[in-house]
Amino acid sequence: MLRYTMGWCDAQGREVSAPVGKLLRPPLCLFACEATGGRAASAVPAAVALELIHNFSLIHDEIQDRDEVRRHRPTLWTIWGDAKALAAGNVMRVVADLSIWDLSKHGHSHASALEVAALLTAAHMDMIEGQYMDIEFEGRLDVGLDDYFEMISRKTAALIRCSMSIGAAIGSGDAAIVDAFANCGRSLGLLFQIRDDMLGVWGKEEITGKPVGADIRRKKNSLPVVYTMSEAGSGGRGLLHEVYGQPGVTDDDVMAVLDVMEAAGARRYCESLTTEYSGQVLEPLRPLDLAPSAYDGLEELTRFLVAREH
Amino acid sequence: MLRYTMGWCDAQGREVSAPVGKLLRPPLCLFACEATGGRAASAVPAAVALELIHNFSLIHDEIQDRDEVRRHRPTLWTIWGDAKALAAGNVMRVVADLSIWDLSKHGHSHASALEVAALLTAAHMDMIEGQYMDIEFEGRLDVGLDDYFEMISRKTAALIRCSMSIGAAIGSGDAAIVDAFANCGRSLGLLFQIRDDMLGVWGKEEITGKPVGADIRRKKNSLPVVYTMSEAGSGGRGLLHEVYGQPGVTDDDVMAVLDVMEAAGARRYCESLTTEYSGQVLEPLRPLDLAPSAYDGLEELTRFLVAREH
Repeated sequence: MLRYTMGWCDAQGREVSAPVGKLLRPPLCLFACEATGGRAASAVPAAVALELIHNFSLIHDEIQDRDEVRRHRPTLWTIWGDAKALAAGNVMRVVADLSIWDLSKHGHSHASALEVAALLTAAHMDMIEGQYMDIEFEGRLDVGLDDYFEMISRKTAALIRCSMSIGAAIGSGDAAIVDAFANCGRSLGLLFQIRDDMLGVWGKEEITGKPVGADIRRKKNSLPVVYTMSEAGSGGRGLLHEVYGQPGVTDDDVMAVLDVMEAAGARRYCESLTTEYSGQVLEPLRPLDLAPSAYDGLEELTRFLVAREH
Repeated sequence: MLRYTMGWCDAQGREVSAPVGKLLRPPLCLFACEATGGRAASAVPAAVALELIHNFSLIHDEIQDRDEVRRHRPTLWTIWGDAKALAAGNVMRVVADLSIWDLSKHGHSHASALEVAALLTAAHMDMIEGQYMDIEFEGRLDVGLDDYFEMISRKTAALIRCSMSIGAAIGSGDAAIVDAFANCGRSLGLLFQIRDDMLGVWGKEEITGKPVGADIRRKKNSLPVVYTMSEAGSGGRGLLHEVYGQPGVTDDDVMAVLDVMEAAGARRYCESLTTEYSGQVLEPLRPLDLAPSAYDGLEELTRFLVAREH
């Protein structure tokens, strides 16, 4: 089940090359380690742990959100049932812990391994809290922009932020440097989630594999909806309340909601936010005087996150 | 939700004194620490972590097994739903980790804190595997005694074993002593689970709060059933297969199964096993020459575990 989740085999355990996800977190960790003077190879156990924790959270989130498809494949619980999928998620979490303990075998002190474990534990707590807020928001019509940002800063940004801070902790061991990378990672994380929310509403079906307005059909409180709920005129808000208040969402409903969003300027708002956050990615790292290639690499990643289509 | 689980408040968050469970694991850890020359107080963060991990596993197990009542109160998922209960279980697990990190603040070295964390992680993995086997066994009619002992040695005995080994690791730091306490804890854990299985079939309703034959009604593969399945004559086995193969279990079915169990000698077998394991509890500790009070304390605990009625 774990190998299936990672995209290494099919449900019968036969080797396949399935989509493996974006693998965003491990390279961020290795990058931060190298950029702050460490050897990237020495951060590999932590990078592995980050990807495993991410996949642990996907397995549990899929159960909680009743998601049936991920990366174009059936999710774990749809194949093996909730009880086994829940257990598999817990095992993935334990394997992540085991990888962290490996740090001491890679020449890191026990104190450093404990620091990394503590950073990961704190991010893990944030993630669960963010997922809890997301569940809590479901079906509510009064979720504000503040609630939304509080939620995604935990649910998504915390682990991306932690990927950077763990890398910097291994690379430098310097608290001020760790903080700077954490702030950089936070902007990347928010940027990542906002783009994700945009693709969930305006993504192209042939690229994302999901129909236009997928997140509207699922009545998710993603940024375009939360923004429109709070900024649209009373007519638009009324329509949104009506659609989100009824049991099912039809194709016509989706089209009507998309019109309301367009009129409220939701797409422009999301775009301006991604521009804003992408401008903040490098800010915290400027004073550190890193190698030019480090800034170039991050700029390239930022451009990718702003423009990605899936 | 966590406070409710611990028995500290009701579902509205109001303070109550509800049943708090047996609190078996923390005293075992403190005992092992003290018996091996440590200060019990210095093992408190580990003892706390053990109880929290135990409660984490209860929350997730209840979701997996669809248990509606624990300690005479509705379980978390019946009140808050699966999604939130799953998240609450994960948080309980993180709080356990946070408690382990506190060991370094109690005068323990980072190496010792990491060793304790590694022991707990290994036990945690065993627990999840055991719970997975238990789920896998559900509805099967061919679970043998070997399968059963493999399952409970992971699902139940691993954490009780770990309570002893962590205490001894903190108290002595000596690998041979840690092993001896681990083996002692394993016997206690098996003893505990076998008695639990006996109470699930023959427990008195007015004491356990569950009807006679509760585990038969739930078609659990507990020891009396597994033993009867493999040892009863073909008539008895046939009846058991019939009852476990049909959708519901009636009062008459329960009575018939109890008769088959009695005829197969299931109760005598379970009793002889508890006698056998209780005789093994002290064995591994004999060569250590502990204080007489340590042996006396364990003997008393063993007698309690053999005779407990709930």
